[in-house]
Amino acid sequence: MKDKLNKLRELTAEIFDIYNAAQILEWDQQVNMPPKGAEQRGNQIATLQRMLHTRTISPEYSKLMEELVDYADELDPDSDDARLIKECKRFYDQKAKVPPEFTAEFYKAVTLAYSAWEKARRESDFKKFQPDLEKIVELRRQYAEYFAPYEHVYDPLLDYFEPGMKTAEVQAIFSALRPQQVELIQAIAERPQVDYSFLTLEYDEQKQWDFGVEAITKYGYDWESGRQDKSPHPFTTGFGVNDVRITTRVDRKYLPTALFGSLHECGHALYGMGINPAYERTPLADGASYAVHESQSRTYENLVGRSMPFWEHFYPRLQEFFPTQLGNIDLETFYKGINKIQPSLIRVEADEATYNLHIMLRLEIEIALMEGALAVKDLPEFWNARMKEYLSVTPPNDRLGVLQDVHWSNGYIGYFSTYALGNLISAQLWEKLNSDIPDLADQFRRGDFRELREWLRTRIHVHGKKYEPQELVRKVTGSAIDPAPYMKYLRTKYSEIYGL
Amino acid sequence: MKDKLNKLRELTAEIFDIYNAAQILEWDQQVNMPPKGAEQRGNQIATLQRMLHTRTISPEYSKLMEELVDYADELDPDSDDARLIKECKRFYDQKAKVPPEFTAEFYKAVTLAYSAWEKARRESDFKKFQPDLEKIVELRRQYAEYFAPYEHVYDPLLDYFEPGMKTAEVQAIFSALRPQQVELIQAIAERPQVDYSFLTLEYDEQKQWDFGVEAITKYGYDWESGRQDKSPHPFTTGFGVNDVRITTRVDRKYLPTALFGSLHECGHALYGMGINPAYERTPLADGASYAVHESQSRTYENLVGRSMPFWEHFYPRLQEFFPTQLGNIDLETFYKGINKIQPSLIRVEADEATYNLHIMLRLEIEIALMEGALAVKDLPEFWNARMKEYLSVTPPNDRLGVLQDVHWSNGYIGYFSTYALGNLISAQLWEKLNSDIPDLADQFRRGDFRELREWLRTRIHVHGKKYEPQELVRKVTGSAIDPAPYMKYLRTKYSEIYGL
Repeated sequence: MKDKLNKLRELTAEIFDIYNAAQILEWDQQVNMPPKGAEQRGNQIATLQRMLHTRTISPEYSKLMEELVDYADELDPDSDDARLIKECKRFYDQKAKVPPEFTAEFYKAVTLAYSAWEKARRESDFKKFQPDLEKIVELRRQYAEYFAPYEHVYDPLLDYFEPGMKTAEVQAIFSALRPQQVELIQAIAERPQVDYSFLTLEYDEQKQWDFGVEAITKYGYDWESGRQDKSPHPFTTGFGVNDVRITTRVDRKYLPTALFGSLHECGHALYGMGINPAYERTPLADGASYAVHESQSRTYENLVGRSMPFWEHFYPRLQEFFPTQLGNIDLETFYKGINKIQPSLIRVEADEATYNLHIMLRLEIEIALMEGALAVKDLPEFWNARMKEYLSVTPPNDRLGVLQDVHWSNGYIGYFSTYALGNLISAQLWEKLNSDIPDLADQFRRGDFRELREWLRTRIHVHGKKYEPQELVRKVTGSAIDPAPYMKYLRTKYSEIYGL
Repeated sequence: MKDKLNKLRELTAEIFDIYNAAQILEWDQQVNMPPKGAEQRGNQIATLQRMLHTRTISPEYSKLMEELVDYADELDPDSDDARLIKECKRFYDQKAKVPPEFTAEFYKAVTLAYSAWEKARRESDFKKFQPDLEKIVELRRQYAEYFAPYEHVYDPLLDYFEPGMKTAEVQAIFSALRPQQVELIQAIAERPQVDYSFLTLEYDEQKQWDFGVEAITKYGYDWESGRQDKSPHPFTTGFGVNDVRITTRVDRKYLPTALFGSLHECGHALYGMGINPAYERTPLADGASYAVHESQSRTYENLVGRSMPFWEHFYPRLQEFFPTQLGNIDLETFYKGINKIQPSLIRVEADEATYNLHIMLRLEIEIALMEGALAVKDLPEFWNARMKEYLSVTPPNDRLGVLQDVHWSNGYIGYFSTYALGNLISAQLWEKLNSDIPDLADQFRRGDFRELREWLRTRIHVHGKKYEPQELVRKVTGSAIDPAPYMKYLRTKYSEIYGL
């Protein structure tokens, strides 16, 4: 059986080489590829994905899987070997249930959809993206059918990003959360508002970039194992634990965009860089789930990056970069400004209190699209109506509305709710972190983020995808995913800022 | 048979998707990859190459090849279909004759050799590279044996880069050329030398970059189908006719490095961008050979880029970029400076008259290594002796001598002579071009390079790899590869500059 396990490792290593090669092609597409390269890139990615698929479901791999699944039952269930076999099986099942031709069609469709989305967004014209999105919705429905029977048609999509999670569970969590968040937002709206106009002055792009680099370097981003580039939508991707790359975007007229983009992606990247190198070229060399990944990015972006101790350290330095814009803005005013709560149009720029409402809207849309209760062509209207209802704002155009996010063009349906779940997990980890390290805030005041990183590395990062997300959250915090710590965190922080 | 041909196209398309994916990984490795990413990148590229190999020699592909080769004989021999089958067969033979284990060993060896070469070069210590180079020479000899019988052990290596070319042919061409070039260089050495000190002033890197971009934009480089980046060694690579990328390097203290690097690579790129799009995802979507490719880069770098008409147009603009450095240098002085002839140590910086001598030295070494007449350990001594003999210069160390070029560490033996052959072809094309377009120089003076590009596109570029290189040269110029036009070009140009 040891031989068979080694054979599994060998075949899996090749499969994940292909997987990582495809990731490199996708990174390049978003960061570097000239516009006319899209068509051939679609072919190249489709071919790699098809090969990955056929290799995973090859008779040799299938047979190995069958034999090793039984063997895994004899092993310590917490051993790396047992977990590796289990994860390979999960990966195998995801492919075995889906015909390779479907995979090729899907990857070709999303490559074209990405270009269509870019154009539609640039021209603020949803019609230019509509046919591609219709195709993607149709393909995602077809995908779900391969996993029938299911409790809900959305379950197979959700499970792909959040192993073990059910649509009904997320709906239950969101139902509990929504009224509390809405109530908090309303309470804040009745208080005197904070000033953030100084964040919308002209900020030199290069200086913004340089300050962001300083900050994430202090966070511990390893430049020998990564790089930062610009892309229309910030993201993190890795091709091995020693090549984990981030992107950000820079807005000359809005300081938070680039900075918090970098801090956010750095949180993802530290996860990727912290995974046990022994897991390279296996499915374990990944985050436990999208929600757990998001808990790391939100920790570094919000719980740390928008905290007073962080800025007690960094604000004088930021003032040195921008003396004209910030020289007369005191720390307290700055802190309140970057933590302003205000319902707004753009999810990635939403504040901590309204963010989850953006997610809830998207979850609702995705479920309705999958159920067939909502047609793609009616999406802009539906979007704008719900934005008004939930956040009391109305997008003036599609660019600032339904076209703002890249994800659907990538075929990512089933994904958005992990953002909100990540917020919840981040607050659960934060409680535990602060109880384990009582002087954490003092460390931040000194610009020292090493113990934070080590705590997260040893408890979360190093395990990669060894544990299921809910298992991991329970292991580290002692609790299931729970909205209470997040609401408590929000209420404490914003009561102080807004004097509730 | 039409069905079989379509099947061949389908399988070939996938093989070339993998090929292009591997090219993207290599481009990224040289342009973007963080240092610690090297190990996994090696695995990823090796896996792609292995897959490409096994797919090409699969029973299905082999059988198709066998059937279609006979079918090709029935077709018009100049038809795209016949040529496609012929090129697929050539590609197939290159793989089928070589065991996959050899390919894996070779790629592993060159990955290690590259690191060894980098270290050896940095420390200027050939001994640190010697064992790896010995391994590579051994593997290249082994490679040649897979193609036995051959006239000369070097033939299979040369044929890989220059289809149909024989070692004896190249030796004959070089033997005719060498004394004439040496004589010219000696005649120049006896004349008063030209001033080029103004080229070694401090030149702002961004401005160098921007001027280069302006120049290649005028050449017709399509930025929607390409991009330019920095890399230690300038190169061109393409992943389809609509994604052809170039790199350059910038030397703050030497103006020609970046500029002529960009012009050179742009010549390669225009070739790649001009190939018939119908050839995408087939082996025809490539240049006819390395020499024909080099003829295009040398045309744009030297015959156009170092010509007086080019600078009559561009020099006033360059002076605007660098008024301090060039404001008082007149056009004539500048033109002479960038055309200075001086035997030197480094091939990539060699001028038009001495360049081929560097190549001849390398060819001689490669042939001797392959014949076993020269041992790797004796290489530095041999190198230095020949440099003295051919160019009257002696490298002070290995870094500036035998270790200067990356190619051997990449396993590229058989490649160098294509550089010199490219020079010869470029002059042959140049004669024909000027006879077909009498006012070419006037067009350049106006900054108009469209007719040049169209002439090259319709006669060379569009055909891709459809014709064998010597067939193509004969088709366009009416003659075999011939050193006379190059010598005539050199003599005319440099007689004027040096008053011979």
